Amino acid sequence: MQFATRLNNVETSAIRELFKLLGKPGIISFAGGFPDSAMFDVEGIKAAVNAALTEEPGAALQYGATEGYNPLREQLAAFMQSKGADVTPEGLIVTTGSQQGLDLLGKTLISPGDKVIVEGPTFLATIQCFRLYGAEIITAPIDGEGVQTDKLEELIALHKPKFAYLIPTFGNPSGGLLSLERRKKVLEMAVKYNTVIVEDDPYGDLYFNAAPPPSLLALSKDVPGSGDLLVHCGSLSKVLSPGLRVGWMVAPPALLANATMCKQFSDAHTSTFAQATAAQYLKAGRMPSTLDKVRAVYGQRALTMGNALRKELGSAIEFVQPQGGLFVWARLTGAGGKVSDGATLAKRAIDKGVAFVPGAPFYASNPDLSTLRLSFATADEGKILEGVGRLGEAV
Amino acid sequence: MQFATRLNNVETSAIRELFKLLGKPGIISFAGGFPDSAMFDVEGIKAAVNAALTEEPGAALQYGATEGYNPLREQLAAFMQSKGADVTPEGLIVTTGSQQGLDLLGKTLISPGDKVIVEGPTFLATIQCFRLYGAEIITAPIDGEGVQTDKLEELIALHKPKFAYLIPTFGNPSGGLLSLERRKKVLEMAVKYNTVIVEDDPYGDLYFNAAPPPSLLALSKDVPGSGDLLVHCGSLSKVLSPGLRVGWMVAPPALLANATMCKQFSDAHTSTFAQATAAQYLKAGRMPSTLDKVRAVYGQRALTMGNALRKELGSAIEFVQPQGGLFVWARLTGAGGKVSDGATLAKRAIDKGVAFVPGAPFYASNPDLSTLRLSFATADEGKILEGVGRLGEAV
Repeated sequence: MQFATRLNNVETSAIRELFKLLGKPGIISFAGGFPDSAMFDVEGIKAAVNAALTEEPGAALQYGATEGYNPLREQLAAFMQSKGADVTPEGLIVTTGSQQGLDLLGKTLISPGDKVIVEGPTFLATIQCFRLYGAEIITAPIDGEGVQTDKLEELIALHKPKFAYLIPTFGNPSGGLLSLERRKKVLEMAVKYNTVIVEDDPYGDLYFNAAPPPSLLALSKDVPGSGDLLVHCGSLSKVLSPGLRVGWMVAPPALLANATMCKQFSDAHTSTFAQATAAQYLKAGRMPSTLDKVRAVYGQRALTMGNALRKELGSAIEFVQPQGGLFVWARLTGAGGKVSDGATLAKRAIDKGVAFVPGAPFYASNPDLSTLRLSFATADEGKILEGVGRLGEAV
Repeated sequence: MQFATRLNNVETSAIRELFKLLGKPGIISFAGGFPDSAMFDVEGIKAAVNAALTEEPGAALQYGATEGYNPLREQLAAFMQSKGADVTPEGLIVTTGSQQGLDLLGKTLISPGDKVIVEGPTFLATIQCFRLYGAEIITAPIDGEGVQTDKLEELIALHKPKFAYLIPTFGNPSGGLLSLERRKKVLEMAVKYNTVIVEDDPYGDLYFNAAPPPSLLALSKDVPGSGDLLVHCGSLSKVLSPGLRVGWMVAPPALLANATMCKQFSDAHTSTFAQATAAQYLKAGRMPSTLDKVRAVYGQRALTMGNALRKELGSAIEFVQPQGGLFVWARLTGAGGKVSDGATLAKRAIDKGVAFVPGAPFYASNPDLSTLRLSFATADEGKILEGVGRLGEAV
């Protein structure tokens, strides 16, 4: 059987191999990229689905519009408006997780050979998704304030990419936070170079102390013309439930229309059963207390992990203490002759009974081999202390 | 904004324009391609989702494997086995409706310029889906026994297609049934020409009297080598609920592995919330009585529509009385100087207060302009009689 040529551009994730080792008994895992199942508001979701099946069973179980279930689009627009973004229900489509938003962008925008700029490091599935559509991926470096906008501007001017894909707020894997000043620069750059910017924002609601700067979407109203070049992908996966597979995409009308057409032939529409459930959940007003809870729990775990890493690994590791999201992104310094390679440490750590993901696979090119990603989301504080202790031994 | 070149290959469905007219008050619609919402087993689905959220809330709301939720894969394999197909849970993946199965086949198999054979007429969204991946679509004609296998063989020999896509059982729009003899010929042809055959089977369980011949999948065990070239797409949409968006795909291992990789970057996985609900529903053993009910209701409606068409339109129309599915596929004969163009009749019919879909858009090429598709699924018998009466006036 001869497969499509586009498959030559990708390979199954290197991380998958690592995940096979996680079944080993007694392993403490910092490797996951998912929220803690114990945080799910099961009772709230149960009430929501029962309301949907009682009040609107026909709609919840029937085919629906490709654009999304209107009561959910209304709730999501209101949710975005509460965070300062001017979004109408017609200005967004519901996607099967924000992953599908990325897939639809690839299908709608990328012709084989087109260039796309991403951050280095960035979300692994994004790189592969865009490569399947034939994109050549260009990497823009990040630092403690997110993507380096002077470098990003040079790359945009040089490569004239189809779009630049950024996770400005607590991104996977960097956990980084793009500063307000740089956010404005990105929007000005979009207009100056007539370049589409994609803001992927699954983690923006997961802040621990002060709220992060407004999203690029919210800021776009202050930068004339930038709104016509901005795509924003959101998701309920990290704060409510990944299993619902409910995400959304805000985009200029012509792009949204083409993405909708592509979605029609991709999966017809996102599960109306899940959409009606999410709509009822948001309507019931439970989201604010759910957000309060996850922010408090993940914030405490982030603090515990940061303190433990500083105590157990000392000068062997450096990282910016995360202000939100699910991850500590760290670099092995090699100080005192200690291990400086993330993949080497990952193997040793498994032997000591703790797992994490080395950072190299998150780079589309020129990986920093000394990096690692540690999730603090799914282990409780006791496990975090024990796991970091084991990591100290492995180092 | 410059869109991907692949968008030049498709356009939004011509049918969409017609659907905008359906909001007109008093219209009786035979235009839909969906099951009757009144048939949904709402109480059974409610029980299933509550069981899922009580027994396995973590799994139902968390990320899951791209291949699908294992308890559902087990139930689906058992369901297929009960219909004579040798399928293991590992031999299928869950898809976001069977539409996603088609999309994954396109992504996995079609390089731009590849040829794909479909039936004329066939499911509209399939044509568009494959064209988005750059396929050149070749049409194989059908008659009262399904696809004409002698013509299909000529086309396969001539065009060496990437695959041939068939809906052998009560397909949309033709409602046709491929005979047992032809089914065997198709499988032999697959082996003889080393050509992949895709069997799309969302309607196979919706038979009204005798069960149809076994699926190509079930028959493939009798034709050595054919199983290595056969893809089978199934769906719960027509018998249980389209809103769940739960379909599945059975395929040879290498194809299934590549389709899984493509799915990982398309939507990560199908809603575990919907999958766990479907698994609980199947486990509860409610499917047989649900199938009994929908078969009886749709069978009666099909009979009512067929008799009314013969009575009201007489020699102006010809069709094969459907033995299953949701559709009457008919041809206007033009007898007695009556209208012979489906699109012309569709416009007149709207004025008389009844809607259906003309058949021409269902052809990838060389449309038969005299055809029409009438759904008997969503109108009750009184409405069917009244609607066909109006159609008689329009003719």
